[in-house]
Amino acid sequence: MANSSEIRPRVLIVGGGFAGIQAAMHLAGEPVEVTLVDRRNHHTFQPLLYQVALAALSPGDIAQPIRALFRKEPNIDVLMDEVVAIDTAAKSVGLKSSAHLSYDYLILATGATHSYFGHDEWAASAPGLKTIEDAIEIRRRVLLAFELAERQKLETGSHPALNFVVVGGGPTGVELAGAISDISRLYMQRDFRHIDPSKAHVIVVEGSPRLLAAYPEDLSRKAAEELARIGVEVRNNAHVTDIQPGFVVANGERIESVVTLWAAGVQASPLGKMLGAEMDKRGSIFVDEHLNPQGHPEIFVCGDLAHAVENGKQIPGVAQPAMQMGTHAAKEILADLAKKPRTKFHYFDKGDMATIGRHSAVANVVWPFHAHLSGFPAWMAWLLVHIYFLIGFRNRALVLLQWTWMYFGLSGGPRLITGSQKLPGWPELTGSGRAANGAPLDVNSPGAVEGPLD
Amino acid sequence: MANSSEIRPRVLIVGGGFAGIQAAMHLAGEPVEVTLVDRRNHHTFQPLLYQVALAALSPGDIAQPIRALFRKEPNIDVLMDEVVAIDTAAKSVGLKSSAHLSYDYLILATGATHSYFGHDEWAASAPGLKTIEDAIEIRRRVLLAFELAERQKLETGSHPALNFVVVGGGPTGVELAGAISDISRLYMQRDFRHIDPSKAHVIVVEGSPRLLAAYPEDLSRKAAEELARIGVEVRNNAHVTDIQPGFVVANGERIESVVTLWAAGVQASPLGKMLGAEMDKRGSIFVDEHLNPQGHPEIFVCGDLAHAVENGKQIPGVAQPAMQMGTHAAKEILADLAKKPRTKFHYFDKGDMATIGRHSAVANVVWPFHAHLSGFPAWMAWLLVHIYFLIGFRNRALVLLQWTWMYFGLSGGPRLITGSQKLPGWPELTGSGRAANGAPLDVNSPGAVEGPLD
Repeated sequence: MANSSEIRPRVLIVGGGFAGIQAAMHLAGEPVEVTLVDRRNHHTFQPLLYQVALAALSPGDIAQPIRALFRKEPNIDVLMDEVVAIDTAAKSVGLKSSAHLSYDYLILATGATHSYFGHDEWAASAPGLKTIEDAIEIRRRVLLAFELAERQKLETGSHPALNFVVVGGGPTGVELAGAISDISRLYMQRDFRHIDPSKAHVIVVEGSPRLLAAYPEDLSRKAAEELARIGVEVRNNAHVTDIQPGFVVANGERIESVVTLWAAGVQASPLGKMLGAEMDKRGSIFVDEHLNPQGHPEIFVCGDLAHAVENGKQIPGVAQPAMQMGTHAAKEILADLAKKPRTKFHYFDKGDMATIGRHSAVANVVWPFHAHLSGFPAWMAWLLVHIYFLIGFRNRALVLLQWTWMYFGLSGGPRLITGSQKLPGWPELTGSGRAANGAPLDVNSPGAVEGPLD
Repeated sequence: MANSSEIRPRVLIVGGGFAGIQAAMHLAGEPVEVTLVDRRNHHTFQPLLYQVALAALSPGDIAQPIRALFRKEPNIDVLMDEVVAIDTAAKSVGLKSSAHLSYDYLILATGATHSYFGHDEWAASAPGLKTIEDAIEIRRRVLLAFELAERQKLETGSHPALNFVVVGGGPTGVELAGAISDISRLYMQRDFRHIDPSKAHVIVVEGSPRLLAAYPEDLSRKAAEELARIGVEVRNNAHVTDIQPGFVVANGERIESVVTLWAAGVQASPLGKMLGAEMDKRGSIFVDEHLNPQGHPEIFVCGDLAHAVENGKQIPGVAQPAMQMGTHAAKEILADLAKKPRTKFHYFDKGDMATIGRHSAVANVVWPFHAHLSGFPAWMAWLLVHIYFLIGFRNRALVLLQWTWMYFGLSGGPRLITGSQKLPGWPELTGSGRAANGAPLDVNSPGAVEGPLD
């Protein structure tokens, strides 16, 4: 930022996810002036969001202020704002605050959000999991369902079946389903007296013929077996046609649901439209082997926002390629400055993994050797990889400490219900405050307290 | 809960704060059937709420699910619900869910909330600090003020003065003010490039002639000195007559304010009205030396909800007496069962303490010896006492670990902005997106980036 800054190329990075953070890290200390714009003040470690949603970790354990990450990097400037327009001719970006930023290089990495396949009205009944706010909302709903069931059991002697429906059987759906089953059987079971949380029933509704469609078939089978072991029901080839408060309709059948979660579809952020670039049907921008959209060697598109193809196969929208794309974009820019030729992006696939509850996982290991792992060994591998990639010493130590406690049953995690105490679709109570025999209902009476659990 | 339960007295505890939790803990394992009702699922360690509000701790660090606290106590039942009616003749309580609970003994300990002295319209502009949600809202506003200032500085070249006004100079006001000053000078200062967070100005507006009016005068003076040392301005004898988005009016003078916090008045929860008991002007219920409201030896009122007098002095509404009252109520009930005489409540005052930033505090020590401490020794005493009383091994370890990191500058805490990105009263930008000379404003131009900090 010293006197030479006027001649330094300006790199504008939009998005502080895995791709944007990696790009900025690889440009730190280099002869460029970088501005990283994100509409949030924090980077979220999305692979562990489901653990915040199911109260194993606190939001602060998996999120870091973006400013704090680049505090010691004088050439990386961070701005909390939102891009609302891109003028590729003027090489300028318009922000929501109405300022403009000009650039020599532009790295677009704003990721994806949920897609309800044209049924946005489902969103209120079936939240997805992309942000810290989403995770807190899911935590609220799941924990509240047990509290409302307990309350209603005391008042009326029964309660709606504790069905939790997860729409989508990809990694997020599988991890959410496993974690709900875990929390029900392990923690809720210890805490509630009048209902039986172990009878909570988790149902995964998947449209394709198998779970984890991107994984090898044997691992899909393993995942289904492991889910069955912890009581999760999986319905494959099940097409959801309606979601309302309190139920889901799949293949024409109504499935009662106290909490429905959406883990089915994603759509890219709307930056593709602003760019005027060619996009695929979910809004991701087609890029060439250098990650440039057509005709714009000064623009790089990374992560979930990019539709990149290698050897005829689309590169998946997960954390690993996003990080590699961010790194690649930074290296291409530095190659330009060094007057070296650009290189093609190559996705170095180390494999994929997904947990299934707290002792088990499936892992399709590609590097450093090929292996299909499942059960406890896969879970150990998952643990090491996720601790390693979690950003920040503080977060790693806090997460390890809390996982250790939970593993040995010493802690049930931060199980707080905050915000509204209403659950969409929860049946209204009669308001009579009377038991069936007309007498005031009394929690302390033997009938209410010691009656059979439903 | 075995066969003998029909003849066991039923104790209903309303409120899971310090008083309610202590009462339940002292009734655990005794020959009574206890139900603890709280409208939240968690107990909050209120003395550390300000640290959640200023992003030093995560909500889960200072809150515990009430169920988890009594998991191993078969005679303590927990219900998340809200009391909406009390029928003292029928010895029955009506719940929001419309169930009824009957009791032999009733312990009311629902605490207090903010009071805006008849100006409820101030609440939106000046949130108070009683719940986890309040703390997250304050965190959002304070952190967002810096982000919006940075954004506006880039767009227009200036920003509103970063004035933070705390209304009320009691312990909460002093602790909030010190913590805002700390976070500005220590963490924000390192993270922002274009504004100068160390110029954030914290103003405490206190109606009485001195801070910490309940403390000895020398400690009030010390607190004022310590606050001055870290740049906090204190205005005593200052009467607030208006609070609007963006400013506060005190003694006829308008004080600009980007974030206003309310730490001035409290009012008791509305249970006094339901009880039909005599109340003081803030709604606390007058109780005798046994903590019973007149004519109801089977009802105990504890904590902030109680107006108890000993030696002509009202017992203060803080954590210590609340805990002791809860314990006393439990012991009175057990004395009844043992056919022993009741004893008078005696407040065993060990003293009071309040932090002023992260190295300093004032402490009025009454037990085990009389002393007025200030500065670092008082802060060490504060730290030990608060760690000791924090409920749950997990929470103690997590809090200690995070305080240690922060103390050595290794972590700035969970500084997440969640929820809305709007701040009441923040001036609207022009929307022109143009600098004064009409040219598109450019964050990367030397003028914008390297201009003088304001």
